[in-house]
Amino acid sequence: MTEIERLLAIEEIKQVKAKYFYAFDHKDWDMWRREVWAPEGRLEVPEFREEPFTPFEEVLKYASEAAADQASVHHGHTPIIEFTSDTEAKVIWAMEDRLYRTPENPLYDGSTYLHGFGHYRETYVKLPVGWRILASRLTRLRVEMRKVF
Amino acid sequence: MTEIERLLAIEEIKQVKAKYFYAFDHKDWDMWRREVWAPEGRLEVPEFREEPFTPFEEVLKYASEAAADQASVHHGHTPIIEFTSDTEAKVIWAMEDRLYRTPENPLYDGSTYLHGFGHYRETYVKLPVGWRILASRLTRLRVEMRKVF
Amino acid sequence: MTEIERLLAIEEIKQVKAKYFYAFDHKDWDMWRREVWAPEGRLEVPEFREEPFTPFEEVLKYASEAAADQASVHHGHTPIIEFTSDTEAKVIWAMEDRLYRTPENPLYDGSTYLHGFGHYRETYVKLPVGWRILASRLTRLRVEMRKVF
Repeated sequence: MTEIERLLAIEEIKQVKAKYFYAFDHKDWDMWRREVWAPEGRLEVPEFREEPFTPFEEVLKYASEAAADQASVHHGHTPIIEFTSDTEAKVIWAMEDRLYRTPENPLYDGSTYLHGFGHYRETYVKLPVGWRILASRLTRLRVEMRKVF
Repeated sequence: MTEIERLLAIEEIKQVKAKYFYAFDHKDWDMWRREVWAPEGRLEVPEFREEPFTPFEEVLKYASEAAADQASVHHGHTPIIEFTSDTEAKVIWAMEDRLYRTPENPLYDGSTYLHGFGHYRETYVKLPVGWRILASRLTRLRVEMRKVF
Repeated sequence: MTEIERLLAIEEIKQVKAKYFYAFDHKDWDMWRREVWAPEGRLEVPEFREEPFTPFEEVLKYASEAAADQASVHHGHTPIIEFTSDTEAKVIWAMEDRLYRTPENPLYDGSTYLHGFGHYRETYVKLPVGWRILASRLTRLRVEMRKVF
């Protein structure tokens, strides 16, 4: 990659993750499928389930079901980006998420509010349509639960 | 635009919004006027008032009066940036704001603390002095009110 | 600097600060030393101590001792970046930090949780190994203390 190609790739990767958050919090699963994930996408949330969700349609099934009975606010911060080839990058995003669950939510556990802090460790790949998330592993440094209102 | 001009414009737009937050939280209205907004700027906060504030001097009057009796903390995250021409961009910023109001504040409503999560949907224009915010519409996904201390 | 060199420097500076947060919250002091700070680094936290910590080994001693008995979450936002020469930049980062202290912590003051909002005002220098933090001054707009759990 030339320096300019690297800068463009960095910017594109940031846009992909920006759309990841925007689409998730707006439950815009069509944007998630078309602009964020690779079809072979893989999501790991080890604190919830050891086995990864994959391919993308399984990621989507999990995420859209979990999100059905919640409002959410996800923010991502200060990515550390390292290219392992012209078509692959390893990225770590700091994150903060707030999930406002209702008793109808399958993950409901007596609390109505999860507030987490952690990191996504991700692999992005350059496909013909552009950069997409191939793999994402979310771990949290800390989780706080509380009732709201 | 060449690729490099696009990257420079993206970076400049991020700087403008960074100064938006910095100036607001420091009540540096001179920086807001000179480095952030277009003179024809328009701000919409539909949850507070349906009609937009415009031009910039009206935006400033509203913001500086609302801010007079409050401390604030605004953070912006992961912008989604799309150029509609060489001199115009549509940008969505995720945001989180905390307003610590005192009873003297005209917006005081019995709570002393607003904690909001939402998005700015904005139009930036390239003026002779550089990129500036022409229009900003703020909506919140969620608002929490609580008393502090 | 050419425009491209400036964009590359901006991106590198963002990576350095991303690693600052990542390394601090993971107590990866080796990354802090090798990839974040200049050997002559200086850290000022005036609300805690008027005199700066310097050189880097003193910064590290302070930070690693303070961090020994705490978990932390640091996030940085929307940097304002200004180059004062080809090898020096002034940068302001908005920040939010959460420190979860235990009674063993030397800064323990009866509360177990500090939640702060403020800004880093920093100087970055370009060394043969890349851009590094030469000086950082942290001030907070607001601090909240509370007990958790």
